[in-house]
Amino acid sequence: MIPGSTPLAETAAKTSRRRHLLDFEGWSRDDVLALLDTTDVMAQVMQRTIKKVPALQGFTIGTLFFEDSTRTRLSFERAARAQSADVISFAAGGSSLSKGESLKDTLRTIDALQADLYVVRHQAAGAPHQIARWTDALVVNAGDGRRAHPTQALLDAYTFRARFEGFDGFAGKRLAIVGDVMHSRVARSNVALWTLLGAEVVLCGPRTLLPAELGQARGVTLTHRVDEALEGAHAVMALRLQHERMTRGLLPSLAEYRQRYQVTRKRMRAAHAGALVMHPGPINRDIELEGALADAPYSVIEAQVANGVPVRMAILYTLLVGSR
Amino acid sequence: MIPGSTPLAETAAKTSRRRHLLDFEGWSRDDVLALLDTTDVMAQVMQRTIKKVPALQGFTIGTLFFEDSTRTRLSFERAARAQSADVISFAAGGSSLSKGESLKDTLRTIDALQADLYVVRHQAAGAPHQIARWTDALVVNAGDGRRAHPTQALLDAYTFRARFEGFDGFAGKRLAIVGDVMHSRVARSNVALWTLLGAEVVLCGPRTLLPAELGQARGVTLTHRVDEALEGAHAVMALRLQHERMTRGLLPSLAEYRQRYQVTRKRMRAAHAGALVMHPGPINRDIELEGALADAPYSVIEAQVANGVPVRMAILYTLLVGSR
Amino acid sequence: MIPGSTPLAETAAKTSRRRHLLDFEGWSRDDVLALLDTTDVMAQVMQRTIKKVPALQGFTIGTLFFEDSTRTRLSFERAARAQSADVISFAAGGSSLSKGESLKDTLRTIDALQADLYVVRHQAAGAPHQIARWTDALVVNAGDGRRAHPTQALLDAYTFRARFEGFDGFAGKRLAIVGDVMHSRVARSNVALWTLLGAEVVLCGPRTLLPAELGQARGVTLTHRVDEALEGAHAVMALRLQHERMTRGLLPSLAEYRQRYQVTRKRMRAAHAGALVMHPGPINRDIELEGALADAPYSVIEAQVANGVPVRMAILYTLLVGSR
Repeated sequence: MIPGSTPLAETAAKTSRRRHLLDFEGWSRDDVLALLDTTDVMAQVMQRTIKKVPALQGFTIGTLFFEDSTRTRLSFERAARAQSADVISFAAGGSSLSKGESLKDTLRTIDALQADLYVVRHQAAGAPHQIARWTDALVVNAGDGRRAHPTQALLDAYTFRARFEGFDGFAGKRLAIVGDVMHSRVARSNVALWTLLGAEVVLCGPRTLLPAELGQARGVTLTHRVDEALEGAHAVMALRLQHERMTRGLLPSLAEYRQRYQVTRKRMRAAHAGALVMHPGPINRDIELEGALADAPYSVIEAQVANGVPVRMAILYTLLVGSR
Repeated sequence: MIPGSTPLAETAAKTSRRRHLLDFEGWSRDDVLALLDTTDVMAQVMQRTIKKVPALQGFTIGTLFFEDSTRTRLSFERAARAQSADVISFAAGGSSLSKGESLKDTLRTIDALQADLYVVRHQAAGAPHQIARWTDALVVNAGDGRRAHPTQALLDAYTFRARFEGFDGFAGKRLAIVGDVMHSRVARSNVALWTLLGAEVVLCGPRTLLPAELGQARGVTLTHRVDEALEGAHAVMALRLQHERMTRGLLPSLAEYRQRYQVTRKRMRAAHAGALVMHPGPINRDIELEGALADAPYSVIEAQVANGVPVRMAILYTLLVGSR
Repeated sequence: MIPGSTPLAETAAKTSRRRHLLDFEGWSRDDVLALLDTTDVMAQVMQRTIKKVPALQGFTIGTLFFEDSTRTRLSFERAARAQSADVISFAAGGSSLSKGESLKDTLRTIDALQADLYVVRHQAAGAPHQIARWTDALVVNAGDGRRAHPTQALLDAYTFRARFEGFDGFAGKRLAIVGDVMHSRVARSNVALWTLLGAEVVLCGPRTLLPAELGQARGVTLTHRVDEALEGAHAVMALRLQHERMTRGLLPSLAEYRQRYQVTRKRMRAAHAGALVMHPGPINRDIELEGALADAPYSVIEAQVANGVPVRMAILYTLLVGSR
């Protein structure tokens, strides 16, 4: 009765065991390495004249951004469309949430759209996990509160693997993360991922922005001295300093912060030979990071941004059709 | 000269006689029953692993929402994309309407985009009809003022037909609608649709929210007593109570409204055996509807939401390519 | 490893020499005439039942609107989708620009999405040129400050060529542009285009809104008298009068403006036989243009709007895959 009502790609079937990417709980080192290998393939696709494959044709990705982030949302949307998937965008602003509806009722309504996978960003830690319990769709966490931002950590690790000269595995490597660790889901997800991969992580920042409990995980060290943090590091990640931290009294002064914690060319001399400089963006030039350093040859900040789409393509593909 | 400039699907041709869905004027009982049958097919499509068919490939659906409603808009967009149609979204907020442009001039501009079908929501009753006079495209009314919301009524009727145990036709069935009937386009469209299908409708609410003229249509009864309304009903629909009604003096107090008009488990005992509970959403739990009732086995509120996409798929398909 | 990872349309390859449409600098008369010919083909596509061709399948168009314009953005998006391209929409409102990020850093982030062509609107003159220097993608200027709006000028010229009875080339034709020339990028781009095509342009407006330097280009005349401007004109374009001009003291009074500069049926009698009335929209009826004139048979304002999509289809196609 309906012309062409046969499915477009029944060959691509959901895996029997549902697999989310909420954080790295339940992900093994091999799972992650397989994902990084798939990212290599996706990166090649994005080098072609025609940057599109039909791998996810017929699937629908729903982006549920309860907290605004245009760059992350567009990165996922591009990753979906580059694989021929459809995209539904739901932003909390225009929704019935403002009429006092609960998250559960909102999800129930959205779920009627029958997306195959949700990409969820939410200001509350644990919201994507909650949503994963309520829906049959797969869920990718695109950032929840200060808790986790696993796709950012994956693109950081992928960038390091692709760009560190003479890379021979994560074991024995050291990542230094400098700045406002307390408020950073990027820091927390990188701690979880790099230690899972066998690397060490050194966290560094002012006393008020460096929670002691993060130092209890295996492979993690805390320090308040930036020179100590950078000593022998293979990668140094500066975190964005939110200006509002100052006014809340969490920092003495911007001048003092810069003087004590800014990642500079001079300080990078203490790091391992060939150490890379990273930043999750957007950068406050000459605050957490010396401006000239952002453009240095060993800065891979642009590569991090460029790897966002291939990493997210690999995640969508692996969750939706990848054999695991 | 242009590679591949042959049309993608000339087989799908517009019907010679243009057919809108503005309300149920001009729609016969058989038209509606055929639409519900097509909805069955669409619901099966949405049960598949790959929830997409090429039925509307090459067609463009324009959503023109002069009044915001994310859930309804996304439902139509999903219904379009699940049939491989393109979607153009036009929200009045970002338009030249705010520069004082008339509706006619706005439509003229949008019409240059040559969409094949517009989905229109507008705060003014009759706006979709007006637009239908100005364009060559087909028009589906997605809600105009207090006047009509035909796609909601269709999904309500479809849900009843699919879920009422031992359903043997709409003739002799009774739908009770309880609450703020006056401000409800959902109520008005359900009155029109269910009476067209041969059912009876009982409307119930406080004197200030129950317009007497609605009782003049054939098959419609009015009452201010909820127990009388539910007596023998096969389906009971509670309407959302807008909080602002209170402040405008249309209601004595919220407590009194609840006490007199809330649809409760206890009151449902007066209804027909197997009677279904419905609500157009979003629900104010424990105001117009007892919270526990929303989750009761005979509540089909989630099914209503789930049927939104298949019903709208059937509408788009029927108007654009269905033989009538 | 990835099913179907072969490119969809490697046949369509980017031209070796990158070609933007920032303004008409570097475009020859033949380039423009070829573009108008391609527009004819696209206009035919938009007359079909199925208004879609696969010409740009696999390409991604990014719309970067730093200044809001729903109508222009949707026109480009439709032009892209009608050729099966993907679209990424970036509006400055929801971006990190509000967090103080520079245009360059913003572009770097967006560029990671690897669009093939950007459509840029910006309040600052020269912004699209700047972006063209920073990206490998192609750039189409959709309006920058008061500087240029080349796609609007192309649709104006196309409309004139298609609708002027007995059209025999642009040489010897005269276009009169009346109104707020100073603030109009539409006026500036039409001056550049029509003189490139061999036509004459007469610019007319109050002293405060008619910059003397525009009269120095070859083929351009300035006048403060509307009757003189319309004398022998083959096309008359009235410009939208922004209400805020009044309050800034650039105009004596609205009444006087109307009396001296409104394009009226009476004044059109001085024009050439068969002269066309144009307006870039949206119109202030009975301010810069007599209301009845907008609906006159020789008004082509609706045709201008209707030609927006085919002209933009031709531009996207020519830049992305057209041999030049």
